[in-house]
Amino acid sequence: MSTLALSTAKEVFDLLRDDLRAIERELGRDAVSDVAAITEIADYLREGGGKRIRPSLLLLAAKAQGYEGQGMVKLGAVVEMVHTATLVHDDIIDAADTRRGRPSANTTWGNAKCVLAGDWLYMQAFHIALEERNFRILDLLISLTQQMVEGELLQMETLGRAICETEYFDLIYRKTACLFQVSMRLGSILAGATDEIEDQLGEYGRSLGMAFQIVDDVLDLTASEDMLGKPVASDLREGKATLSVIHSLENGTEADRGAIEKVLLDQSFDRVDHAEILEILNRNGSVEYAMAAAFRCAEAARQGLAALPDNEFKRALLWVPDFVVARDK
Amino acid sequence: MSTLALSTAKEVFDLLRDDLRAIERELGRDAVSDVAAITEIADYLREGGGKRIRPSLLLLAAKAQGYEGQGMVKLGAVVEMVHTATLVHDDIIDAADTRRGRPSANTTWGNAKCVLAGDWLYMQAFHIALEERNFRILDLLISLTQQMVEGELLQMETLGRAICETEYFDLIYRKTACLFQVSMRLGSILAGATDEIEDQLGEYGRSLGMAFQIVDDVLDLTASEDMLGKPVASDLREGKATLSVIHSLENGTEADRGAIEKVLLDQSFDRVDHAEILEILNRNGSVEYAMAAAFRCAEAARQGLAALPDNEFKRALLWVPDFVVARDK
Repeated sequence: MSTLALSTAKEVFDLLRDDLRAIERELGRDAVSDVAAITEIADYLREGGGKRIRPSLLLLAAKAQGYEGQGMVKLGAVVEMVHTATLVHDDIIDAADTRRGRPSANTTWGNAKCVLAGDWLYMQAFHIALEERNFRILDLLISLTQQMVEGELLQMETLGRAICETEYFDLIYRKTACLFQVSMRLGSILAGATDEIEDQLGEYGRSLGMAFQIVDDVLDLTASEDMLGKPVASDLREGKATLSVIHSLENGTEADRGAIEKVLLDQSFDRVDHAEILEILNRNGSVEYAMAAAFRCAEAARQGLAALPDNEFKRALLWVPDFVVARDK
Repeated sequence: MSTLALSTAKEVFDLLRDDLRAIERELGRDAVSDVAAITEIADYLREGGGKRIRPSLLLLAAKAQGYEGQGMVKLGAVVEMVHTATLVHDDIIDAADTRRGRPSANTTWGNAKCVLAGDWLYMQAFHIALEERNFRILDLLISLTQQMVEGELLQMETLGRAICETEYFDLIYRKTACLFQVSMRLGSILAGATDEIEDQLGEYGRSLGMAFQIVDDVLDLTASEDMLGKPVASDLREGKATLSVIHSLENGTEADRGAIEKVLLDQSFDRVDHAEILEILNRNGSVEYAMAAAFRCAEAARQGLAALPDNEFKRALLWVPDFVVARDK
């Protein structure tokens, strides 16, 4: 990350500092259950951090449109809780050992408790959202969660095989972009946006989320384990073909395709090693291809902001897509 | 079951036949997802049957108060879906092999898909409930689901050890009675009941649910595998102490307590066999003790109906507690 970007990240953070702190306090309050195991797991997940990018988007969307109420703190906590709930269940499904550089919750508490902790977090998120007494908000959150759950199931059915770009884009929409989109929509609803503006900001969130996930998938292949806080190429190890891999599958030689398919099928680098895959991706220009797609999504995101009045929150929203595609972890 | 009871069961069923059929159609429509695995699992679960006792209670509560709208069909499907979602996740947690005499869903589709199918069913239930555009209904459903999830976690923490009656009653409230209570409340809300009547009918549901679960737990110990559609004494095999077992733990000899604790700890009948446990329970009058508690709950349930006008639906509600405590499977 360049010094310039860092300084801008700090500026954006400063802009949201008080609200993000309020969201952390809200998350702390919301994680408390009569049942010790739930509070323990919820605390562990909350303390694991994460970028809080979804609540930040919701805050920026609301504040860019002049909203000043407390709803954005509540709903910021809600989108983070929904996100966390999906991670807990996904880690069970992927039998993940680590998450954000720490043992995943299922490793510590076991699958059974984590199924229930995930359920509880979903319900707690809806419980907080219900306090807004706004049906549109609930419609969005419930339909979002269904999309995400369906996406995870669809992904399971693709494991170990080549998929096409259409399948890939549908999967990352459900996995990531849908929640980015809903975060922007929720901020807009709080601010009393027209349907048109809400749709445009939703499009911003969707495009940004697509860019975010494409870059995430590239970094999974190209970054180091230290950077990622998890083993490199874990997507391939789980049998998942991401955009650059799909590009090499479709544009590489027969041998390239054969090598990639072996890794997908084996869900390991036993027969073909990681370096060989990287060589294939680089030789076919597949990493650049994926990054170009991410840049296009980032540009599309910025265009969704056209109708917003100029203010520091809009400027922050304009900057976020650059940050997302330029990050190295 | 006596002939008299059977004939009354048919009368109750006749009273609700059209609405229950409408609920089955609604459940069929609601189980459809773009994702084949979800539709498959949801169909499998729906076709597994079950007594539809929760939707029946909701229908009776609404109709006893003169309600005639379509909301009761929708919400009847909702409570059944919430129930099914909890069963799917519970079967994962208990690593159950069978459910209602068939392989449990997790045996066929694996835990990962069933975590997601359960999530999806919860969301679909809320999605349908949202159509009623009534916040009270959503408050009840979300808080119910949290109670149930917490109950399952609390239960996990009791496995393998003796518990006291207070713990037992809290667990069965969360596991069963809470959803019976909410079903009665939802029917009342649809019918526009006063808070007082809603509370009274909620109490009916709670007491009935307690009676239902106490009897279920007794049957698990005393009925045959053919009757149950699952192995006998599966609670003890999972390390769960139920009411009659708690009674013998607290009122039996040192040797009785030792024998029961061995089974709970081992989660098997390897050191102490099932017949020996039944002998302990019978000698201490523990089965009668549990059934007496169930009869008291059934009586308390009936008292919750005092304020209802006399009609065939009230008469059906008066009959249900007798049915619940007299059933042999």
